[in-house]
Amino acid sequence: MKQHFESVAAFRQVLETIQGPDSSAMREAEERNGQLTKPYRALGRLDEIAVWYSAWQRTPVPSVSFPWVTVFAGNHGVARRGVSAYPSEVTAQMVENFRQGGAAINQICQAVGARFQVVALDLDRPTADFTVEPAMSEAEFTAALTIGWDSFEPACDTLVVGEMGIGNTTAASAVAAGLFGGPPSRWVGSGTGVDAVGLDVKRQVVEDGLRMHRSVFGDPLEIARCLGGREFAAMIGAILRARVESVPVLLDGFICTAAAAVLERAKPGALDHCLAGHLSAERAHGRILEAIGKKPLLSLDMRLGEATGGALAIPIVRAALQCQSGMSTFADAAVSGRDDAGDDSGSGSR
Amino acid sequence: MKQHFESVAAFRQVLETIQGPDSSAMREAEERNGQLTKPYRALGRLDEIAVWYSAWQRTPVPSVSFPWVTVFAGNHGVARRGVSAYPSEVTAQMVENFRQGGAAINQICQAVGARFQVVALDLDRPTADFTVEPAMSEAEFTAALTIGWDSFEPACDTLVVGEMGIGNTTAASAVAAGLFGGPPSRWVGSGTGVDAVGLDVKRQVVEDGLRMHRSVFGDPLEIARCLGGREFAAMIGAILRARVESVPVLLDGFICTAAAAVLERAKPGALDHCLAGHLSAERAHGRILEAIGKKPLLSLDMRLGEATGGALAIPIVRAALQCQSGMSTFADAAVSGRDDAGDDSGSGSR
Repeated sequence: MKQHFESVAAFRQVLETIQGPDSSAMREAEERNGQLTKPYRALGRLDEIAVWYSAWQRTPVPSVSFPWVTVFAGNHGVARRGVSAYPSEVTAQMVENFRQGGAAINQICQAVGARFQVVALDLDRPTADFTVEPAMSEAEFTAALTIGWDSFEPACDTLVVGEMGIGNTTAASAVAAGLFGGPPSRWVGSGTGVDAVGLDVKRQVVEDGLRMHRSVFGDPLEIARCLGGREFAAMIGAILRARVESVPVLLDGFICTAAAAVLERAKPGALDHCLAGHLSAERAHGRILEAIGKKPLLSLDMRLGEATGGALAIPIVRAALQCQSGMSTFADAAVSGRDDAGDDSGSGSR
Repeated sequence: MKQHFESVAAFRQVLETIQGPDSSAMREAEERNGQLTKPYRALGRLDEIAVWYSAWQRTPVPSVSFPWVTVFAGNHGVARRGVSAYPSEVTAQMVENFRQGGAAINQICQAVGARFQVVALDLDRPTADFTVEPAMSEAEFTAALTIGWDSFEPACDTLVVGEMGIGNTTAASAVAAGLFGGPPSRWVGSGTGVDAVGLDVKRQVVEDGLRMHRSVFGDPLEIARCLGGREFAAMIGAILRARVESVPVLLDGFICTAAAAVLERAKPGALDHCLAGHLSAERAHGRILEAIGKKPLLSLDMRLGEATGGALAIPIVRAALQCQSGMSTFADAAVSGRDDAGDDSGSGSR
């Protein structure tokens, strides 16, 4: 259902009401999984995904027939500080490229059979420079949360969120440092490929931002408002909406995961309906994943963002659910069980 | 072209004539890759795969439109020694399950859009117990090499080979130990899930086999004949055929990779047209991959065999090639290049 968040407090209220997994659907899926014609858990993470999907889609027969990928684009005041190898106008140019179908995410969506949308957020009005003031006012922040929430396609059964925004690895580093502490160098990397000088600038900008907003560090949503960007808020809104709609989420890379981590820190367990699609080559990504307890499905040295790593995990999930629903059981197929099972038609789970 | 290998010598002759990569197609692919609308190599291994595929399909525009998965099934004399948690009749039962479409690999092929075939190799005539004599005579070995070679579908553009055979992790451990040395414990794991006693039996059987056939260790194909199985020989034949046909191969797990490694040891570079589809939970798999210099695409704790890990890598490769062929270049899309590129329409490769 659509929402208009008048205040951050209204958003917090929704966050406080989220449900846990459906343990009865999960038990049913687990029981079927143990009877399939393979040694117990021989499909490893595919077996885990199948059972996990049952829990979060709240059905013993989960599916990925309508995966949906949304990329949110935003511009950043800190981009003027020289934190990126690319100029800010690339954000709008890339949005046009997404619309024309020429970007990497368009190809990956086509290859994996996912629907795609891009949502541009006030690109001609970058966030404020967070080294001097909060990146967004409360009104700007809640507007972006609302856009993310409302971007959700009700028919979808798996959601991938991603982003595009020149300067947003710097914002993600600041958000991660605000959420998890430690020196800026722990959270800053080369992004789209800045050189050593650019890296020093990024570190300094993050340090300045952290000093400016230290007073809000006890409040994860305030960290996102002061140090993040509109695409961060929109991803946060979309991920929470998916939870409310019982739709699992595949997280993308560093920036997406930094935004998602805001939810987890604001309400532990808020990301329990999310899988980490991949591990980015941007080193700080692995640190956030570790901090929020997520093990990535893929690790292919990608560092592009725009939902590419999350979308690439769709076929893995699809294969997992197809095995769970389509495989014969030992009994169906008249395949003998283990020699030590004491029952020739027994399951492989012993 | 079909072949009938009258002798191992005839097979060796084909192995000696294999070609290297097409470096001109590869250069062309590399150049295009550097102009796509993303920071240079930001797709990580996807970028590498795209260029690599050009080299081995011998075209600047590689594709995965007709991926083909073949599972070879064989039975093993050593199975009588109690090396598996399952009885030998499971091999034939699983072949029937493959034919009925009820196994994991059937679901994965459906999920990833690949064609599937299963080739059963004399299941009612297990190989000899390698602890007392060679697993196969030269005639049996060359017959299986021929079946693998001839199983190749000429229209396919990507090949995945896999296996099914109760007892064949024991054979794979023996082959790996013969090829790479070290104690049996380095190469023996729990397979479909034997307990500690079964593991001791496996180690002992492998040790006995190695002692019996030590004299052939200088000759990888003889190691495969004496310690392997028919499905090993068939995979070896199919992988070499794919090389001759300029078709890249995605390797599956431990047993498949042990068989493939025979080719690499017999003729260094013979697996240069192969990618490691995944890393199995069977620990010795990683050791073989390291020995032959292959980095797996996926690592999902799978340990099922039957080509599942290789087939699951198909969508990764498909996405890589779709990005390479479908993405706009910076010039096409009028996206600005890097600030330091000195040319607004420049490529992202600088």
